Amino acid sequence: MERNEALEIVKPHLTKHRYEHTLGVMETAIRLAERFGADKKKTELAAIFHDYAKFRDKEEMRLLVQNVLSDRLILEYGTELLHAPCGAYYVEHEVGINDSEILDAIRFHTTGRPGMTLLDKIIFLADYIEPGRTFPGVEHVRELAENDLDAAVVQAIENTIAFLMKRRQLIFPETVATFNSLVKDKKREK
Amino acid sequence: MERNEALEIVKPHLTKHRYEHTLGVMETAIRLAERFGADKKKTELAAIFHDYAKFRDKEEMRLLVQNVLSDRLILEYGTELLHAPCGAYYVEHEVGINDSEILDAIRFHTTGRPGMTLLDKIIFLADYIEPGRTFPGVEHVRELAENDLDAAVVQAIENTIAFLMKRRQLIFPETVATFNSLVKDKKREK
Repeated sequence: MERNEALEIVKPHLTKHRYEHTLGVMETAIRLAERFGADKKKTELAAIFHDYAKFRDKEEMRLLVQNVLSDRLILEYGTELLHAPCGAYYVEHEVGINDSEILDAIRFHTTGRPGMTLLDKIIFLADYIEPGRTFPGVEHVRELAENDLDAAVVQAIENTIAFLMKRRQLIFPETVATFNSLVKDKKREK
Repeated sequence: MERNEALEIVKPHLTKHRYEHTLGVMETAIRLAERFGADKKKTELAAIFHDYAKFRDKEEMRLLVQNVLSDRLILEYGTELLHAPCGAYYVEHEVGINDSEILDAIRFHTTGRPGMTLLDKIIFLADYIEPGRTFPGVEHVRELAENDLDAAVVQAIENTIAFLMKRRQLIFPETVATFNSLVKDKKREK
């Protein structure tokens, strides 16, 4: 699927602000794919569709997770996590993309997962550092992303968990498992 | 068991520094017990024995966890966590204390657990705020502990997880589950 066709499909599902975010994620992700050697076409599609379900009805997504998907644990952790696994489902069944690497990168773009693939990491990170983002600490993550993908991802996860804890929000266990998985990978390298 | 007898039993197992820490935990824990209505005698014993296994042989403790105890998950998270569940075991089998509330407070004093008891919280917190501690942020936790036990415990856990993440150390999943459990309790109160 060509870029423009994909953008035309996704555009009506997003607000103007979120569409601009999506373009930022797409451009950032493609630069990361060039830098770290990922498939550029898959990266482009995963980035364009990563927030496809961002504005879907929460109750519809809750039922989808409960009755169809295997990510039922997320139901205990608020509604913000629903759009990632549901997005992967809708992109497969409504848009007809069935590449499992693309679908997984969409599915895990908010929470991460232990053993993230290169494409998972690129979409997760691009979502965090695209030019529209102003999180505290984002500039440091952008600098890390210049040379070290894993260091950037682990820093983004640290920032996210710290942010959630400060706000007394629930921490999704798989995100902590992702942090631990990256720390173990790093130790193994040494 | 009287305080002096308990202190005589624990003393030879600890360094001078760690014995002074234990006295600090004991005094702090008893003040917390008075403030929040816990059993003072149980609090005293749990505090005195909380670090009973701090300097036991790591390999001996690893084998104990592997072959006898039910906390096997901790083996994947470094050796620092061993002394709490092993301490509970040794205090039961060597010292002869068999009060399950005291043993649980020793067992969970490092990691916490979802649904911590009042005594669990007091020992966990006293270990964190006793006068010898100088962690960044400890003063704020001491202030919270003046009126709100749960707020102090959740802040101590936030600080601990943030500290471990900064150092790229593994986060024990049950500690995150403890954070989530306290956040949920708080929401339920409202």
